[in-house]
Amino acid sequence: MISKNKLKELAAYRLQKRCDEEAVFVVEGPKMAAEVVVSGFTVRVVCATGEWLSAYADNMVAAETYEVSPAELERLSNFKTPNQVWMLVERNTEVQSSKFKIQSSKLILALDRIQDPGNMGTMLRTADWFGIRRVVCSRDTVSCYNPKVVQASMGAVLRTQVDYVDLPEWLATSGMPIYGASLQGEPIVGSEFGTSREAVLLIGNESRGISPEAMAYVTHPVLIPNLGGTAESLNASVAAGILMNYLLWNSYNIKKEELR
Amino acid sequence: MISKNKLKELAAYRLQKRCDEEAVFVVEGPKMAAEVVVSGFTVRVVCATGEWLSAYADNMVAAETYEVSPAELERLSNFKTPNQVWMLVERNTEVQSSKFKIQSSKLILALDRIQDPGNMGTMLRTADWFGIRRVVCSRDTVSCYNPKVVQASMGAVLRTQVDYVDLPEWLATSGMPIYGASLQGEPIVGSEFGTSREAVLLIGNESRGISPEAMAYVTHPVLIPNLGGTAESLNASVAAGILMNYLLWNSYNIKKEELR
Repeated sequence: MISKNKLKELAAYRLQKRCDEEAVFVVEGPKMAAEVVVSGFTVRVVCATGEWLSAYADNMVAAETYEVSPAELERLSNFKTPNQVWMLVERNTEVQSSKFKIQSSKLILALDRIQDPGNMGTMLRTADWFGIRRVVCSRDTVSCYNPKVVQASMGAVLRTQVDYVDLPEWLATSGMPIYGASLQGEPIVGSEFGTSREAVLLIGNESRGISPEAMAYVTHPVLIPNLGGTAESLNASVAAGILMNYLLWNSYNIKKEELR
Repeated sequence: MISKNKLKELAAYRLQKRCDEEAVFVVEGPKMAAEVVVSGFTVRVVCATGEWLSAYADNMVAAETYEVSPAELERLSNFKTPNQVWMLVERNTEVQSSKFKIQSSKLILALDRIQDPGNMGTMLRTADWFGIRRVVCSRDTVSCYNPKVVQASMGAVLRTQVDYVDLPEWLATSGMPIYGASLQGEPIVGSEFGTSREAVLLIGNESRGISPEAMAYVTHPVLIPNLGGTAESLNASVAAGILMNYLLWNSYNIKKEELR
């Protein structure tokens, strides 16, 4: 059971501003909630259906737990179809890695003014797949704690250190080769690929690309060749995935046999 | 000006079923509408703001054209924020290629039970970028004429032949090598990549992967190695993009210098 006042209080966390002020974020749905339960993140509030609570409550430590009806869940949710559980989780400046066997790549992903939460979440998910544990964003990139980012990341946001910085300044002092996706870049072709050193992969805004201020520090502008000749651009998260795959091969000293 | 009755009649095309029955599809927003204008597709109805009409009406042939208010556009639209123009366009079984210089790759994209319209549209967009002009889908894959697919495809749906078939049957008779994305596949690594022959790339459902019936015809199961060891899967359209890029290198006899 949850009181009307408590429900009203928690519904206010649909505002990103409120979440930012208290350094918390909202996680929804059984899949993401299960990731939180094992992540080591501190859960402040859980609102869930009786079904979810009877399955998971034993494995979970939360300061406050409420059983809610589907209608009450709808009042809290950021989504059209709320799904069993809503959690208020405390942000963590350090990545909780204790419960995961984390392999970390030499590549850092840098994001310049990414706006679409789906793209942002998908890029975090892809980075997670490739073992990229550090993502550095311009201050005007969408928050990694936006509920749609959290959802699209499929838990990656719990395993990745995401920093918001003055990006040109950070790039200037990084001391690493900086690969930047650019329509004026060098085509990535065939087997000439990869970097064995620490490096940065920089992805720009969905429609405007990398800002001139950040582009000034790109040492290797790269282009995925437009083989068809008709499309104007690739989706930012698809381009990021292709370039992560392209750049990572020589970063790992792994034999093919070990990869299965 | 548009009558109340006409507006009501056109608003019915928000139902996919109605569009299917009449073999039409809805296109929204100035960017996609501009693509339709040059595509050679037959436009049945245009509803647009005065601003859009004064800029584009001269270049466009449509059976019916109506100037509408933002509130009227909202009644027609499939999106939260309607954008200047709504069009009802006739489907075409053959791809309209006359106005585009189309380069066609030797790769065919096959989709098994893709459900998310954003993924479907993004895969068509990526295929367009790589010159893949043919996409073959299982009958239960989301319609390429779904308004969200049309939008995410960024015009690719106008330049791609998309067929819905009995997929296992089609695969059985294709006579080509079939690469299938699979968590049990052979890792794609380093420079051993590409196919110089005609081939099929098969991508499966977002959560269930390729169906056993279709998997039976996969000659080359392939895996994008999970280098991080923590993520459960990649987004389907990101995986498709990485594999298209991987498989296409040897399909084109293009020198690197020509690619810029």
